[in-house]
Amino acid sequence: MAEGKILTGAGLRGQVAGKTALSTVGKTGAGLTYRGYDVRDLAAHCQFEEVAYLIFFGELPTLQQLQDYKQQLKALRALPDALKQVLERIPAQAHPMDVLRTGVSMLGNLETEHSFDQQQAVANRILATLPAMICYWYRFSHDGVRIDENTDDDSIGGQFLHLLHGKAPNALHEKVMNVSLILYAEHEFNASTFTARVCASTLSDMHSCITGAIGSLRGPLHGGANEAAMEMIEHWTTPEQAEREMLGKLERKEKIMGFGHAIYKDHDPRNDIIKQWSAQLAAEVADTVLYPVSVRCEEVMWREKKLFCNADFFHASAYHFMGIATKLFTPIFVMSRVTGWAAHVMEQRADNRIIRPSAEYTGPELRQVQPIEQRIAS
Amino acid sequence: MAEGKILTGAGLRGQVAGKTALSTVGKTGAGLTYRGYDVRDLAAHCQFEEVAYLIFFGELPTLQQLQDYKQQLKALRALPDALKQVLERIPAQAHPMDVLRTGVSMLGNLETEHSFDQQQAVANRILATLPAMICYWYRFSHDGVRIDENTDDDSIGGQFLHLLHGKAPNALHEKVMNVSLILYAEHEFNASTFTARVCASTLSDMHSCITGAIGSLRGPLHGGANEAAMEMIEHWTTPEQAEREMLGKLERKEKIMGFGHAIYKDHDPRNDIIKQWSAQLAAEVADTVLYPVSVRCEEVMWREKKLFCNADFFHASAYHFMGIATKLFTPIFVMSRVTGWAAHVMEQRADNRIIRPSAEYTGPELRQVQPIEQRIAS
Ligand SMILES: CC(C)(COP(=O)(O)OP(=O)(O)OC[C@H]1O[C@@H](n2cnc3c(N)ncnc32)[C@H](O)[C@@H]1OP(=O)(O)O)[C@@H](O)C(=O)NCCC(=O)NCCS
Ligand SMILES: CC(C)(COP(=O)(O)OP(=O)(O)OC[C@H]1O[C@@H](n2cnc3c(N)ncnc32)[C@H](O)[C@@H]1OP(=O)(O)O)[C@@H](O)C(=O)NCCC(=O)NCCS
Repeated sequence: MAEGKILTGAGLRGQVAGKTALSTVGKTGAGLTYRGYDVRDLAAHCQFEEVAYLIFFGELPTLQQLQDYKQQLKALRALPDALKQVLERIPAQAHPMDVLRTGVSMLGNLETEHSFDQQQAVANRILATLPAMICYWYRFSHDGVRIDENTDDDSIGGQFLHLLHGKAPNALHEKVMNVSLILYAEHEFNASTFTARVCASTLSDMHSCITGAIGSLRGPLHGGANEAAMEMIEHWTTPEQAEREMLGKLERKEKIMGFGHAIYKDHDPRNDIIKQWSAQLAAEVADTVLYPVSVRCEEVMWREKKLFCNADFFHASAYHFMGIATKLFTPIFVMSRVTGWAAHVMEQRADNRIIRPSAEYTGPELRQVQPIEQRIAS
Repeated sequence: MAEGKILTGAGLRGQVAGKTALSTVGKTGAGLTYRGYDVRDLAAHCQFEEVAYLIFFGELPTLQQLQDYKQQLKALRALPDALKQVLERIPAQAHPMDVLRTGVSMLGNLETEHSFDQQQAVANRILATLPAMICYWYRFSHDGVRIDENTDDDSIGGQFLHLLHGKAPNALHEKVMNVSLILYAEHEFNASTFTARVCASTLSDMHSCITGAIGSLRGPLHGGANEAAMEMIEHWTTPEQAEREMLGKLERKEKIMGFGHAIYKDHDPRNDIIKQWSAQLAAEVADTVLYPVSVRCEEVMWREKKLFCNADFFHASAYHFMGIATKLFTPIFVMSRVTGWAAHVMEQRADNRIIRPSAEYTGPELRQVQPIEQRIAS
C-alpha cells in the first residue's frame, strides 16, 4: 500500500477530488449555481433545454441557438429496433432504474462512441432517448402497448408526460417538469457524478460512464430517496399521524429519506422551489392529505433534529400529483442529471489522470498457503 | 463548495479513500497480497475458485469446501432465455465489454437483488454466468452458433476455453487460465473497484455496482490495456523492428499500453508469473516472433524510461497463444475481477458512508440570467 494521508472523515467528505467549472454546491452567498447562475434564477426564467445547453456549452443560448438545439434533440428521439426488443424482454416487476441502466448500455452496443470527437453527439442522443426508453418499457410491460416515441412535444419534460399518459400534458404540468429537470440537472461531485468521472478517468466511453452513474443514482441514499420518501408518506392520512410516525422513526434511529445532505448544512436551495410547485399542484388536484402531511414531516424533522428537506422530499408529492407512478421518480432524475454527468465526463477527459486512490489495510498479516489437505474448516 | 483540502496530486493518488481487508498493493515485502497471501504463492498452489472463495469468505477452503463451492457455481451456469435473446440482438461489431456490461445489467432485471442478504448468491451467480455470457454472444454473432452453456468443465477458466473453442482445453491452457484469473482477481482501490465502491456507497444493488465496474475496466488506461498492447505488438515481426517502433513512440511521447502503474513504482509482481507462462505457451506453439518481440519491448521500456511491464503486457501474448481473439482479453479480466469487485461491495456495505467528495471550483463568478432576447451568441 502506498503511503497515504489517513482522512478524518469517511466517504471522502470535504476532500477535493478534482476541479470543475460546472457548478458550486453550498458556496457562501448562493446555494447552488450552474456555470455561475443561481439555480433559483434558472428555474424561474429558463426551460430545461436551455439549462442543458448552458451546462454543455458554458453559456446560455440565444433564442436561435435554443431553437436549433431543441430541434436537434427532437430529431434524435427514435429508439433503435434492437433496443425496443431488449426493452420488451424486461419484465414489469423490474426496477425502472435497472431498465434505464440496461437501455443506455444496450444503446452503447448499437451506437458505440468510437472517438471522443463524438462525445457531444452521444450525450445529446442519450438525453433525447431517455424519456422514450423508460416509457416504452413501462407502457409495454404494464399496459401491453407499443408506444410511438416520435411525438412532436416541444420539451423533454412534455414528451415524457405525453408518452407516459398517452396525452399531451397541461401547461402547469409541463412547467413543473421543466423546473424539476432544471433542479436535478447538475450537482458537482455527488456520488453518481463521481462514478461517471472515475469511469471517464480510465478513458472509457460515454455509455459506460452514464450506465455507471445510473447504477449509483439508483441507491436509496442518493436518487432513490424521492421514491423512498413517497413510499413513506403515502401511508399517512393526517399530519398528526405523520408526526407520530416520524417521532417513532427518529426514536428508533431510522434514516428518513428526503432529509439531510452531505454538503448543505441547514438548507437545500432546491427545496423552496419544488415545494412551492408541489403546493400549486396540490391545489390543482384539491389535495388535503399528501401536501399537509409533507409539510408536517418537514416541521417535525427541523424541530427535532435540525434536519431539512433535500431536493427529493417535495419532489415526491409533486410527481405524485402529476399522476406519475412512484417507481418512475428516480428515472426522471436520470433524464435530467444525464446533462451534468455527460458534462463532467467531458471535463474529466479534457484534463485527465486516472482516479485511483489508496486504502487503509485492515486485513491479516502476510501468511503462507497451506496444502489443501492440511486446512481446517473455519 | 465545502472547505476541503486541496490535494497535491490529481486522481486521488496516494489519498486514502477507505479501509479494506481484502488486499495490499505495493506494500513493503510483498508486492500483492489477497487476504494476507502473496499472489505468487496463490498462483503457484491454488485454483481460481479456491482464490475466489478466499476473497469472499476470508480463508482458503478445505478440499470439501472447495468442492462444494465449485459444485454450487457449476449449478449456476445456465443463462436465462431473456438474457440470451438480448445477447442475440447485440451486433458482432459491438465492443465485448459493452456486451458484458449489458448482460450483467440485464441479469439485474431478471434476478434483482432485493435485499443485501442475497449479496453472496448474486455474486456467485454473476461469477458463474460471465464465461457463458461472453461466449454465447461471441459465437452467435460471429459464427451463427447457439452454444449450450451447460458444460461440465471443472473450472471457470476451462469452461470459458471450452465454450469459446468448442472443445475442452488441454491441461496447459486450463492451467494458464487458472493462473491468469488468480492474478487479476483483486487489486485494492483500482479505478473499477473504486467505481463499484462508490456505487455501493449509495446502497445500490450488486448488479449496478458490477455493471459500473465493467464500464470503468473497459478504459484503455485500465483493463483495456491488454488489448491495446496486443494491437501494438502484433504488427511487429522482429525484436529489432519492435525496438525501433518503441523508440519512435517514446520520442513522440505516446503512452505505451501495458507499462507503468499508479501504485507500483518499479515492478508489478504479476508480470513475472504471467511472463513465465507466456514463455511456456510460446514454446508449445513454436512461436519465434511474438514472445521475443514482447521481451524486447520490456527491455527497451526499462532501459529508456525505467517503466516496467504491468500485469497486462505478457497477458496479451499468453492469451494470443491460446487462440483467444484480442477483443476478448478484457472480458477475461472481468470474469476474474468480479470476485474482487463483489467482495469490495460487501465490505463497503458493512461499514458505509456515502462517497461524496468535493471539487475545486474553476468556473465563472455568480452572474444573472439575461432575458433570452438580449443574449448575444457566443
Ligand atoms: C444525504 C446523506 C446520505 C448525507 O450523508 P452524510 O454526509 O454521510 O451525513 P451523515 O450521515 O454524517 O449525517 C449526520 C448525522 O445526521 C443523521 N442523519 C442524516 N440524514 C438523516 C436522515 N435523513 N434521517 C435521520 N437522520 C439523518 C445521521 O444519521 C448522522 O447522525 P449521527 O452523527 O448520529 O450518526 C444523509 O443525510 C441521508 O442518508 N439522507 C437520507 C437519504 C437522502 O435523502 N438522500 C438524498 C440526498 S439528495
Ligand atoms: C497505469 C497508469 C494509468 C498509471 O498512471 P499514473 O499513476 O497517473 O502515472 P503517471 O501518468 O503519472 O506516470 C508518470 C510518468 O510516466 C509516464 N508514463 C506512465 N506510464 C507510461 C506508459 N505506459 N508509457 C509511456 N509513458 C508512461 C507518464 O506519462 C508520466 O510522465 P510525465 O511525468 O512526464 O507526465 C499509466 O502508467 C498508464 O497510462 N499506463 C498505460 C496503460 C496501462 O497499461 N494500464 C494498465 C494498468 S494495470
